[in-house]
Amino acid sequence: MYRTNTCGELTLSETGKKVVLCGWVQKSRDLGGMTFIDLRDRYGITQLTFNMEVNSSLCEQARTLGREYVIQVEGVVAERYNKNKNIPTGDIEIIVETITVLNEAKLPPFTIEDNTDGGEELRMQYRYLDIRRNAVKNNLLFRHKLSMEIRNYLSEKGFIEIETPFLISSTPEGARDFIVPSRMNEGKFYALPQSPQTFKQLLMIGGMDKYFQIVRCFRDEDLRADRQPEFTQVDCETSFVTQEDVLQTFEGLYKDLFQKMKGITMEDFPRMTYDKAMNTYGCDKPDIRFGMPFVELTELLQHRHFAIFNDAEYIVGVCAENCAGYTRKQLDALTDFVKRPQVGASGLVYLQCNEDGSFKSSVDKFYTQEDLQAVASKCNAKAGDLILILCGKKEHTQKSMCELRLEMGNRLELRNPNLFKPLWIVDFPLFEWDEETQRFYAKHHPFTAPKPEDEYLMETNPIAVRANAYDLVINGVEVGGGSVRIFQRETQKKMFKVLGFSDEEAQKQFGFLMNAFEYGAPPHAGIAFGFDRMCAVFCGVDSIRDFIAFPKNNAGKDVMINAPSTVSKEQLNELNIISTVKDIQ
Amino acid sequence: MYRTNTCGELTLSETGKKVVLCGWVQKSRDLGGMTFIDLRDRYGITQLTFNMEVNSSLCEQARTLGREYVIQVEGVVAERYNKNKNIPTGDIEIIVETITVLNEAKLPPFTIEDNTDGGEELRMQYRYLDIRRNAVKNNLLFRHKLSMEIRNYLSEKGFIEIETPFLISSTPEGARDFIVPSRMNEGKFYALPQSPQTFKQLLMIGGMDKYFQIVRCFRDEDLRADRQPEFTQVDCETSFVTQEDVLQTFEGLYKDLFQKMKGITMEDFPRMTYDKAMNTYGCDKPDIRFGMPFVELTELLQHRHFAIFNDAEYIVGVCAENCAGYTRKQLDALTDFVKRPQVGASGLVYLQCNEDGSFKSSVDKFYTQEDLQAVASKCNAKAGDLILILCGKKEHTQKSMCELRLEMGNRLELRNPNLFKPLWIVDFPLFEWDEETQRFYAKHHPFTAPKPEDEYLMETNPIAVRANAYDLVINGVEVGGGSVRIFQRETQKKMFKVLGFSDEEAQKQFGFLMNAFEYGAPPHAGIAFGFDRMCAVFCGVDSIRDFIAFPKNNAGKDVMINAPSTVSKEQLNELNIISTVKDIQ
Repeated sequence: MYRTNTCGELTLSETGKKVVLCGWVQKSRDLGGMTFIDLRDRYGITQLTFNMEVNSSLCEQARTLGREYVIQVEGVVAERYNKNKNIPTGDIEIIVETITVLNEAKLPPFTIEDNTDGGEELRMQYRYLDIRRNAVKNNLLFRHKLSMEIRNYLSEKGFIEIETPFLISSTPEGARDFIVPSRMNEGKFYALPQSPQTFKQLLMIGGMDKYFQIVRCFRDEDLRADRQPEFTQVDCETSFVTQEDVLQTFEGLYKDLFQKMKGITMEDFPRMTYDKAMNTYGCDKPDIRFGMPFVELTELLQHRHFAIFNDAEYIVGVCAENCAGYTRKQLDALTDFVKRPQVGASGLVYLQCNEDGSFKSSVDKFYTQEDLQAVASKCNAKAGDLILILCGKKEHTQKSMCELRLEMGNRLELRNPNLFKPLWIVDFPLFEWDEETQRFYAKHHPFTAPKPEDEYLMETNPIAVRANAYDLVINGVEVGGGSVRIFQRETQKKMFKVLGFSDEEAQKQFGFLMNAFEYGAPPHAGIAFGFDRMCAVFCGVDSIRDFIAFPKNNAGKDVMINAPSTVSKEQLNELNIISTVKDIQ
Repeated sequence: MYRTNTCGELTLSETGKKVVLCGWVQKSRDLGGMTFIDLRDRYGITQLTFNMEVNSSLCEQARTLGREYVIQVEGVVAERYNKNKNIPTGDIEIIVETITVLNEAKLPPFTIEDNTDGGEELRMQYRYLDIRRNAVKNNLLFRHKLSMEIRNYLSEKGFIEIETPFLISSTPEGARDFIVPSRMNEGKFYALPQSPQTFKQLLMIGGMDKYFQIVRCFRDEDLRADRQPEFTQVDCETSFVTQEDVLQTFEGLYKDLFQKMKGITMEDFPRMTYDKAMNTYGCDKPDIRFGMPFVELTELLQHRHFAIFNDAEYIVGVCAENCAGYTRKQLDALTDFVKRPQVGASGLVYLQCNEDGSFKSSVDKFYTQEDLQAVASKCNAKAGDLILILCGKKEHTQKSMCELRLEMGNRLELRNPNLFKPLWIVDFPLFEWDEETQRFYAKHHPFTAPKPEDEYLMETNPIAVRANAYDLVINGVEVGGGSVRIFQRETQKKMFKVLGFSDEEAQKQFGFLMNAFEYGAPPHAGIAFGFDRMCAVFCGVDSIRDFIAFPKNNAGKDVMINAPSTVSKEQLNELNIISTVKDIQ
């Protein structure tokens, strides 16, 4: 062992002890007669002291050490004169007796500090240096601890972690697969799993009634900000359970995690139907840390001569408390916000509820004070509040108002990152209709069961069929979702039929699962959580990237190792493929 | 919840309790007035009872249930008349009141019994049914428990599990990579990792001084029996440690695992150098559950007129205790064994040490009784023992004798599967010479450090350079291995030079790692264990396949889901590749 202690553990009780420490030179201060070095490792920082009068050559040697040099020092723990209350080792320092340079270091391309001067790109390229920073390091430690807690909780509840294969076969349904040419099976390809969905269902059929896995999944999609081509999922499935059992079990998991990771005792999680969420918050993952529910104003506002409202399918308002005093500039900024392409509204109507009981609105000339009073009442607005109104096609307007509501939540600082408000969304529709391809898609996935009481509608009115499907939303972020599954071949056939599969296509792609249903499939249900996202939500941050040790950029590249890269012609020959891109070598 | 209890937990103390059970119909016995059904789930078997006189229609219904039907029953726990001492629930039965058929089942293609009638191929095709069998199920439960113990042990010791990427870049050194065409980066390919080797080293450079990961790895090699294209590794790395620290830490892990998983308290693990292992057992993973060490007889036997011995580079014997009485037939069988192509000897010489003190040998005419006495003495043979002798080229003969020794161990039942004999092999050579390609290869991998005292030989006599590399062998199986790593750019450059890399090639393939060495790389060392193999070794079985939920066959196929399979032309077009195999659709 190169060291007796770490740089994060020595305190006054070790005074006088001879120790050996290893670490990186964080900082060096030369005060003439004295030199101080902050030595850093994963566990903390310890101050090293060198005295010119006591040992001038050692002190000279210390002065030659550059930032990020890796050194080993031997010395004695001593009480510090100027104590540093900000770090656990701040009461002591090491009177160094010998220094061994284990490795030199070039000047790092950015500072290894909490507030680094390195830009995103540079830090990605030198990710191994970025990992030395507390921010990234602590995220990785948090991730480890969270995964341990999840595994231990589920294991104690009788869940078994079972590894499912990574080299599987490609299915056209769903997102785009990454594929892997098979050398031994000419002309054939494996696919990397988008999730272990079918395997976990086969495990249920195999009688392993409580399964989980923390597992990498892959999706070859165009990467939006904060999406990764490979991501980690906490994947779970249980047999002989209802939706209620699944919600109870995993609510239990989250309560345990909030307790262990954050020291927070959570109340029971509220539940909301998909329809209610859409009508109240305009999306299926509402942030309920704050109110500001949607109030539909369509009927109330369509009886006057304001053509834009009269032509609108849907008019909706939200009430921002105590914002009646917003200036012209602030209101213009909100109008600009809603007109952004990502939000997509054509304009914003506002209604200020003045302290004197009067109302001022951008559509004053079309409405009487009584009209505006009625709107204010419907919105439960009081004097001093501001009502923001959007109109247009219903679905589109809900989406825009959802964005506006969140923006107001941000502006009013109602989205406290230290407050956690989980919410189960239930009763999702089984299908959604896609205008472009003119077909139904499974809202969750094609293995989701219809609610038994809605199953008769599958052939006549698919869009009305609800599913026992559920999402867990925390602070406006969908951390996971699942469903009760189909476990009977006939229901699965009906499902594929609505999705436009011929019997042959269904058999070709999912025949193994449909066959398995014939050999004694138990009723089962499951859920999966995005683990990267889960880490971010628990830490109250938006980006998942810093919870991944070696993330890829938005082009799917690892700029540190330069992946993907070219391969040799011989490799492609062996795999019986040709690249159509010229000059790849 | 569909059930109040599992089929593995009810005992006499629950007599009279009303319960609901779910499971699969294992067996049904119709005894005229009574019908008994064995109901099975993951946890066990519970007997269900139906009485024709009490409820004839229910009893009739029970008789219609086929094997592997999934049912839910409600009933009352009762003491059993004929108790079954072989199962935990054998004292009770359920007097059933209602049956609900949750799903019917076709007759399974093989019996779901401990001794099934299904062949390997059929069981692979219906793996989900095979998993219902105790043999496979218990292996998966064992695997889960082992992984939990490993994670908890390492986590308690301060190790952090960090996930490394699966989509990396291809490197020609080592085994063949699986590659993944990148759609977003035209003409470029990801590779699936053969191990997280470089990433874990980068984590050390990043200061995460104790890393582990239980992680899938991939190798596109021709599959010998019991090799899988994807396999799971327990991958570990530590900074600021020596070889001794690594051996201590992971010996501690294994002692803990033997205690927890097998209830065995292990002694300290012996250590043996690579040279000693090769000379004593002819291989670097000796089974030391039994003795029978090699005894070199070259000098002793080359002074007479037996040309075959006189021409041999190497003559070696082993002593099989109490086998002097082997019949002609038994000796012929051994000769046939050594002549197999896998063993590769041209013949076998034996020497029987008779009870009367005389010797009988297949080479009697060339040697005197005194000569034979000398051989027996050198082999420490006593009256009643049998000495088996092989000769030829040294390396080849060692290999053959290694096989013969193991065969004798099997025949003499000296390889007790319930006895565990771990052994560290240390001081591996850094390089091995390959005759075919006329170049050096890294014996472990190109990141292994030379022993400091041997480093000066790297340029002049590479084959003599030893490494601080180590393997853990249990019962003749290599369960893992590792090494102290190179952490300085100059040493790494020297290494690549011996391996025949130009500076440019080295920079192109491993530049990111060599660059990283310049920014403060700490000394580090690591180890990795084959997790599938580890499970098998702990359970005393040879095959890893039944510890993998969904294994592939020797052609790399998953015959259950039919992977790999063809993909659409559109998929290949998007990826800018063409298959050279005709008619793939």
